Amino acid sequence: MFQIEIEPGFSDTDALGHINNTRLPVWFENARKPVFQIFTKTFDFERWPLILAHLSIDFLGQIYFNKMVTITTEIEKIGNSSLTLRQCAWQSEQCVASSSAVMVYFNYESNSSKSIPDDIRKKLLPHLIHKPD
Amino acid sequence: MFQIEIEPGFSDTDALGHINNTRLPVWFENARKPVFQIFTKTFDFERWPLILAHLSIDFLGQIYFNKMVTITTEIEKIGNSSLTLRQCAWQSEQCVASSSAVMVYFNYESNSSKSIPDDIRKKLLPHLIHKPD
Amino acid sequence: MFQIEIEPGFSDTDALGHINNTRLPVWFENARKPVFQIFTKTFDFERWPLILAHLSIDFLGQIYFNKMVTITTEIEKIGNSSLTLRQCAWQSEQCVASSSAVMVYFNYESNSSKSIPDDIRKKLLPHLIHKPD
Amino acid sequence: MFQIEIEPGFSDTDALGHINNTRLPVWFENARKPVFQIFTKTFDFERWPLILAHLSIDFLGQIYFNKMVTITTEIEKIGNSSLTLRQCAWQSEQCVASSSAVMVYFNYESNSSKSIPDDIRKKLLPHLIHKPD
Repeated sequence: MFQIEIEPGFSDTDALGHINNTRLPVWFENARKPVFQIFTKTFDFERWPLILAHLSIDFLGQIYFNKMVTITTEIEKIGNSSLTLRQCAWQSEQCVASSSAVMVYFNYESNSSKSIPDDIRKKLLPHLIHKPD
Repeated sequence: MFQIEIEPGFSDTDALGHINNTRLPVWFENARKPVFQIFTKTFDFERWPLILAHLSIDFLGQIYFNKMVTITTEIEKIGNSSLTLRQCAWQSEQCVASSSAVMVYFNYESNSSKSIPDDIRKKLLPHLIHKPD
Repeated sequence: MFQIEIEPGFSDTDALGHINNTRLPVWFENARKPVFQIFTKTFDFERWPLILAHLSIDFLGQIYFNKMVTITTEIEKIGNSSLTLRQCAWQSEQCVASSSAVMVYFNYESNSSKSIPDDIRKKLLPHLIHKPD
Repeated sequence: MFQIEIEPGFSDTDALGHINNTRLPVWFENARKPVFQIFTKTFDFERWPLILAHLSIDFLGQIYFNKMVTITTEIEKIGNSSLTLRQCAWQSEQCVASSSAVMVYFNYESNSSKSIPDDIRKKLLPHLIHKPD
């Protein structure tokens, strides 16, 4: 499981006095960085390894300014060329937003997906929610 | 069907040279404003009528700077106290991102959902994708 | 004078119930696009012509959701390799934020400024606030 | 001197491959939070103590993804009802953006500025760049 800490900024609030829903996709993207790091060490934009194919978020509770937020990231499924991640935003020990993200291992030059190589697959396995038997 | 036009800004791009995925939830939220307007004429923040319970986005194609984007919004389902919307971001006549959003008619003071009243329901009906027989 | 219209989004508001100050630099950047267009027709990121060297903003009034904003852009000064722009955000016929931006004509490859060529200079002149005699 | 650490997010980059200038005002706002904390302990939005009257930024160098940024905040001047702050964004031990911000001690209800009380003034003094003799 990966974990990052976020301090909500004042510009993340909206006129309802809580954090605006559109900030969650940004926080979840930031929290996926350690997964990227398994695919690329250099973060070379010319050889970017993954694209986001799908994102879904369930908003489970209000999120407030002036309280830290923790984002957890786990791998739900490793497919042939794709990854399904499960993420949660936690505040005051409650999961206030849960998210599912599908990322595809991708070759931008040929504009097509690629099989995830075995050496990367091995590094992903420890982060699976349900470990294979 | 509701429709708004968006001109992508330069700060909406990312280092991959296209529009960053986190901008889509913002554009989709802006495109839901006409639906809000059916629930509230005054946009009084103290009596905000809807909360976003769920958002999912399928990213179907890259979105580019310097080309207009159209966001379409239709109602997929009107439940007792919730609405399911179907939205699309179009660029160069292609749906580059499609989205589903569930909004709940909500009373912030009692912190609970409410039944959508008949007069609002009537105004929503013309925007249903599949009209009832 | 260049002019664009902006419809504030709900995520542009903050917990004080007005538009957050950090949105203004985004709107001003978007409003400088027609000036960029004089320097580049293709918006080729590999040959980006200008960098922002300085930005200052005076916040003169509150900006509200659900009212259109107009951004005006004029050229205050054309230097050898730089441009000074004067911009205003208008809402309800009041200038609610005024801004000064200095942009430098720049060669990213050599990492140095360049003299603005005469043909570009000619196209900039009509947008000067104070026309030369 | 106040100090916060920022990890640039991928959505903070733009198509030029560096951090977009419009993110700096957000980071500087976040870095002013400890100054707010001297004026308010509760961060009650109904009794918000300060408004931003002026912001200026000099962009001194490019800012990159995948490297931490430090924002420093010092007080340059304490006026009767206003504060002038000096802020810097540091990356790789270089000040890549310096900023000046004027904040006014403000009563939102009467829509007017107020004198900064002595007890707050005392708590601000240690953060002055140039200490009074």
